[in-house]
Amino acid sequence: MLDNLAKFTNLKRDISEINIDPLQRGGILTPEARAALVEWGDGYSVCDFCGGMLDRIKNPPIEEFVHGVLPEFLGTDEVRITHGAREGKYAAMHALCEKGDYVVIDGNAHYTTVLAAERAGLKIEYVPSSKEPSYSISAQGYADAIERAYEQKGNVSMAVLTYPDGNYGNLADAKAVANVCHDYGVPLMLNGAYAIGRMPISARELEADIIVGSGHKSMAASGPVGVLGASEEYARTIFRLSPTKKNKEVELLGCTVRGAPLLTLMASFPAVVERIKAWPEEIEKARWFSCEMEKMNMVQLGDRPHNHDLMFFLAENLYEISQTAKKGRYFLYRDLKERGVSGIKPGLTRQFKLSTFGLSREMLQKVLGAFEDIINSY
Amino acid sequence: MLDNLAKFTNLKRDISEINIDPLQRGGILTPEARAALVEWGDGYSVCDFCGGMLDRIKNPPIEEFVHGVLPEFLGTDEVRITHGAREGKYAAMHALCEKGDYVVIDGNAHYTTVLAAERAGLKIEYVPSSKEPSYSISAQGYADAIERAYEQKGNVSMAVLTYPDGNYGNLADAKAVANVCHDYGVPLMLNGAYAIGRMPISARELEADIIVGSGHKSMAASGPVGVLGASEEYARTIFRLSPTKKNKEVELLGCTVRGAPLLTLMASFPAVVERIKAWPEEIEKARWFSCEMEKMNMVQLGDRPHNHDLMFFLAENLYEISQTAKKGRYFLYRDLKERGVSGIKPGLTRQFKLSTFGLSREMLQKVLGAFEDIINSY
Repeated sequence: MLDNLAKFTNLKRDISEINIDPLQRGGILTPEARAALVEWGDGYSVCDFCGGMLDRIKNPPIEEFVHGVLPEFLGTDEVRITHGAREGKYAAMHALCEKGDYVVIDGNAHYTTVLAAERAGLKIEYVPSSKEPSYSISAQGYADAIERAYEQKGNVSMAVLTYPDGNYGNLADAKAVANVCHDYGVPLMLNGAYAIGRMPISARELEADIIVGSGHKSMAASGPVGVLGASEEYARTIFRLSPTKKNKEVELLGCTVRGAPLLTLMASFPAVVERIKAWPEEIEKARWFSCEMEKMNMVQLGDRPHNHDLMFFLAENLYEISQTAKKGRYFLYRDLKERGVSGIKPGLTRQFKLSTFGLSREMLQKVLGAFEDIINSY
Repeated sequence: MLDNLAKFTNLKRDISEINIDPLQRGGILTPEARAALVEWGDGYSVCDFCGGMLDRIKNPPIEEFVHGVLPEFLGTDEVRITHGAREGKYAAMHALCEKGDYVVIDGNAHYTTVLAAERAGLKIEYVPSSKEPSYSISAQGYADAIERAYEQKGNVSMAVLTYPDGNYGNLADAKAVANVCHDYGVPLMLNGAYAIGRMPISARELEADIIVGSGHKSMAASGPVGVLGASEEYARTIFRLSPTKKNKEVELLGCTVRGAPLLTLMASFPAVVERIKAWPEEIEKARWFSCEMEKMNMVQLGDRPHNHDLMFFLAENLYEISQTAKKGRYFLYRDLKERGVSGIKPGLTRQFKLSTFGLSREMLQKVLGAFEDIINSY
């Protein structure tokens, strides 16, 4: 087994020219991040000049990035680097909630929010969405869920809103949700994995207490890396110091991203700040794309008009084709790939999500052309 | 603050030709890993062909690496990829121990073992080392520590041995420690962050139940990435599936290293397997280096003869120089850097650690020459 290992080297990424997987659109490296990867690739390279705290390293200027720039960028008091959004959610839950407590989670939440709660030993009370076609999450739903947890004599120690969610790209009224949660004295955590780095967002403006983001999902960084922000009140507990090891934050196990991904996050950051300014055009492009898809009888679910690049489509026509097509439900994956488009999961036809983020209208026209071509060819 | 961001791009790693920091010696990328970084740099690139479990991805061949190759390499039943050794230690403690339990830890343990225990809410009973000059850890010390915990009515649910430790590079008799722990029904976790990827090691041969390693520290990988291995008995609990989310392992929050560091770990792996075969020469080189340092009146502490490339030196002569040298205790850092050597922490003179791993005798002769030159110049 340990003799034939060459297969693990020289692996190529076999992917189409256009990748519309929402997971991949916001994580494409900038040239600056690519250069950072090469420069800082070695093992623990960022630690050469560390005095004991990752976020206090002055060369490279991690301290300025983490303590100066990121809190302003996220609109929060304190920020730390994490391995990603899920690790940030777990850290916050683990620090702020007691085993057996309730956490209230929107019904559109990413599975990792559920896993973070399960890992922290928390019970979950869901805020159901309005179901098809809008799948919206209401502020009132949070009040109802908190009340239901109370009826079970539960202690609700956190609420989470996925903003936007990763299925429909819906942006709920976060501020209204925060207000409801605060009426009950419950802190609100925003999962901004699909927001931070794509669109303007401020925890303070939305009155969220905690916010997590993902470098690899939406900040043009190499994974795994993320950000965790919190208001002073909660930061104190989440980022508490070890009672025995000087300057080491317990919840972060001292330090988190001791490697190149952090440097890619920093290197891409100026470009990320720039691209967020073009968010209105991104929305416009997404709406146009959605409209063109609907002309081909595929229906966009979720918020309408849509406010995000991540969109969910219902395609009965593609499903019908799959019933008789060669390779069955894998036809769509194959046919799109033949036309230079990837990112819709193999086997999906009736419903799928995609993202238009960072793709030019010309590229998106190619995607639309591929769908049209496929539909017409059966 | 968000206007002047160019400083975060184009950052260069300002490091000397020879870096003797033990943290850095084992993490230098192979050319294959460097190529993998570039090819797989984008965000979540490894997830293009994921069916829901990172460790089951067939293209790139992560499944074969994680489930086929690594268990054999580590001599254990089950392996998963983690963000690093500390995250592996925490995952194992969090999964296997109850809050308030005791964990028995060697007195030479890395600070992250303590943080992992603190984060998991565990009490710590230390196995003290024999102190200067050998700082050795005995198997009997584990029995004594477990007994002390029992006297306090504690439940001892894990023991940890740092193998080797990161201060002295000592390799304790792990098998004897395992036997003592097993006599008490306590599982033993080996922290192999400085072993796995440098020297031959098998959890099974040492009778360790759990083992963690670090990709960025010793496996020529870009951080953060590590490995966590466990025997079937404990793997079942550590890698338990979510009761609600199909195929997702709770303790790993579904998946861990969803990015390029994992691909660098794989790309370097054939070279890592090769370099381990040269371990006897690495030891010989370390012993020769230690001997040459002692000729200059610096004393190597820890195991003698030494069995690892990481070594700790006591240098009263350098300390004396620091009392009158310009820049005081920072003279050594500056003077070594002027001679092309970095890796000893700024400000240290009287005692410091270094590593000879992967450096040729010619390079090490340069290091020795630099020390000699500095000593003679005052």
